[in-house]
Amino acid sequence: MEKYITEFIGTFFLVLVVALTGNAAAIGVVLMVMVFAGGHISGAHYNPAVTLAVLIRGKVSRYDAGIYMIVQIIAAVIAALIAKWYVGDMAVVALDLSSRLLKAFVSELLGTFALAYVVLNVATSKGTTGNSFYGLAIGFTVFAMASTFGSISGGAFNPAVALGATIIDAFAWQNIWIYLVACFGGGFIAALVFNFVNKEDKPVPPLPTA
Amino acid sequence: MEKYITEFIGTFFLVLVVALTGNAAAIGVVLMVMVFAGGHISGAHYNPAVTLAVLIRGKVSRYDAGIYMIVQIIAAVIAALIAKWYVGDMAVVALDLSSRLLKAFVSELLGTFALAYVVLNVATSKGTTGNSFYGLAIGFTVFAMASTFGSISGGAFNPAVALGATIIDAFAWQNIWIYLVACFGGGFIAALVFNFVNKEDKPVPPLPTA
Amino acid sequence: MEKYITEFIGTFFLVLVVALTGNAAAIGVVLMVMVFAGGHISGAHYNPAVTLAVLIRGKVSRYDAGIYMIVQIIAAVIAALIAKWYVGDMAVVALDLSSRLLKAFVSELLGTFALAYVVLNVATSKGTTGNSFYGLAIGFTVFAMASTFGSISGGAFNPAVALGATIIDAFAWQNIWIYLVACFGGGFIAALVFNFVNKEDKPVPPLPTA
Amino acid sequence: MEKYITEFIGTFFLVLVVALTGNAAAIGVVLMVMVFAGGHISGAHYNPAVTLAVLIRGKVSRYDAGIYMIVQIIAAVIAALIAKWYVGDMAVVALDLSSRLLKAFVSELLGTFALAYVVLNVATSKGTTGNSFYGLAIGFTVFAMASTFGSISGGAFNPAVALGATIIDAFAWQNIWIYLVACFGGGFIAALVFNFVNKEDKPVPPLPTA
Repeated sequence: MEKYITEFIGTFFLVLVVALTGNAAAIGVVLMVMVFAGGHISGAHYNPAVTLAVLIRGKVSRYDAGIYMIVQIIAAVIAALIAKWYVGDMAVVALDLSSRLLKAFVSELLGTFALAYVVLNVATSKGTTGNSFYGLAIGFTVFAMASTFGSISGGAFNPAVALGATIIDAFAWQNIWIYLVACFGGGFIAALVFNFVNKEDKPVPPLPTA
Repeated sequence: MEKYITEFIGTFFLVLVVALTGNAAAIGVVLMVMVFAGGHISGAHYNPAVTLAVLIRGKVSRYDAGIYMIVQIIAAVIAALIAKWYVGDMAVVALDLSSRLLKAFVSELLGTFALAYVVLNVATSKGTTGNSFYGLAIGFTVFAMASTFGSISGGAFNPAVALGATIIDAFAWQNIWIYLVACFGGGFIAALVFNFVNKEDKPVPPLPTA
Repeated sequence: MEKYITEFIGTFFLVLVVALTGNAAAIGVVLMVMVFAGGHISGAHYNPAVTLAVLIRGKVSRYDAGIYMIVQIIAAVIAALIAKWYVGDMAVVALDLSSRLLKAFVSELLGTFALAYVVLNVATSKGTTGNSFYGLAIGFTVFAMASTFGSISGGAFNPAVALGATIIDAFAWQNIWIYLVACFGGGFIAALVFNFVNKEDKPVPPLPTA
Repeated sequence: MEKYITEFIGTFFLVLVVALTGNAAAIGVVLMVMVFAGGHISGAHYNPAVTLAVLIRGKVSRYDAGIYMIVQIIAAVIAALIAKWYVGDMAVVALDLSSRLLKAFVSELLGTFALAYVVLNVATSKGTTGNSFYGLAIGFTVFAMASTFGSISGGAFNPAVALGATIIDAFAWQNIWIYLVACFGGGFIAALVFNFVNKEDKPVPPLPTA
């Protein structure tokens, strides 16, 4: 239960800052502080694509992974609705990706790959156990990727963030599949690469219900 | 005595930077460095709402909590007066919240909740003992929250900062109750959540006078 | 093999962010997160001049140093080609150094010296073993140096980055020798200085093939 | 000897970045990385006022303190001359403090106090031994103070930096006494406060020649 509350709080503030600021620095920073605050309790995913990567790497149980994703989505919806209450009836024009669908897709794939690759290495690897930089590394990966790909794809790298951005009309509903496929795909590939590169740091089979 | 001097110095520089710059990055950074400098002596609250949260979590005595709050307020007043001396007779127009009282209230509540939640997790929790990121996490929570809510509520998340901002006429006297109620409320809720989520990291009853 | 994949991923994202943003903050940050993610596997050089410095300091084998450099160059080329695909047929005017060749050379020499000096001290020195700041220090050295010298030399401090920048026509082919000579020169001098200053932290002879 | 070279390199890059950028973020960052790189060798003062504070706190010998200050001044002069070579015959108008001498003095005093207070707490205190944040805290104190006081006093907080800024005509020669008196004064007061607040962390008498 503690873990689910932690995932809720972290994802809620992440999506709230995304929706109210759209600012890469603020977004990277709020992710950083929420990872530092919640990492010792839930692992601080706040992102279904990261949860998928950690599941494949064997550091979260299937049961918890499922609950995490549901909680992340609920938190994103609530944060988006609060953001809507804040900004009121502003006419927002959703990001139009029609001229660059493939580029947007590749951007989300690369950005989420980088994010999940960093998470697995700094938060689940034997070689970095006990470090004090995991939140800094994870949060600022989103800053770097959003600075690079934000103008192309919107820079979600997170299906829950993409859902929140779609609810507030910053993203178009017709494009949400891009974020689902590319983000989960990026997390999936990152987990495969991590497991290959860290063979001695053996990925264990998914934990039984914890 | 050492603890009170430390709280004075930290709160003084925090309010001075708030009053002279109003810049979220400078404010987050000065809080970070003062937390790193003073955390090992006083716990580095620099904020009555944080002191309330740490009191409920059982990591400061009632006696010290009272003195901390008094010292924080004195430091904020002195810093605000020095800031006034710096800027001279500039006509400042106090932030007008009349069109968005509820939004401002919720902003201070959410922002202070996030701040106290991060403080309790990174500076008082067993799970993060001995970490080297507590100042970074705490200071940059204020940066993220001020980036998000600054244009709505002014972004104090701290009754002492709100008092300083009111003395220099950046905030209106008639609105100070918002910062008092919302900030202490946010700290209070964060402590309840922390105690619930960290049951095994048992909140001890308030320490006797130390 | 794991090490080479790690060098590939880190250098790839570094050059991609350089090519797509040209922004000193994003560049410093992506280097930081990739160093935090990969340091425990490959040492996280992502830079042939750093690999040369680490070779002289005796912390990478000659064999690995050679492969690292080849992998870094391949990663830079691929990242540059992907960046070209992103931006399309934009007419880019390559940086014209003709009026300030010497200043550009000195800039790259000083900047790469600083970078390699920081790397050797925070990532290979006995005196800083087990620290949690190596990525922060290394990444932000590039930020500081690029902020200082970017307008003079372009701010590569890395032959692989310089190659990538040349492929996307940000740098001119006729100037690439500057980056090769100055960056390797800066790394070389940094290693000599490090070995002199850290005599007791004895540079070992280059490791045999690992 | 190693220590003096380290002080030279750190002060050189600090003053070079100050002189070529005048940018608070770049300055704070270069100080951070040089502190992380050199702290384990020389203590990473790079500032005669910090050396004075560390001398009073008893963590550097009188002999070393003297050499450190001389080396810092030499490094600042050389960096300033190189900066002059870079910018050429630009007409620089030195900061005119005549209308705000007292405010400039207080700014340098407060800023250097904060810097030396942070240095003593994060780099010489028992309570923070072995931390990984000392460079971050020290460098970003300069960022916060320069953001606050830069437009008033120029934001040196360091006699060697002030000398460098005067050589490149950013500061006026007639004002250099302000930086000398206020910076050494701020460092002096910080050391007294530290020694008072950390009585159990006994300041030892100045070390004999090391």
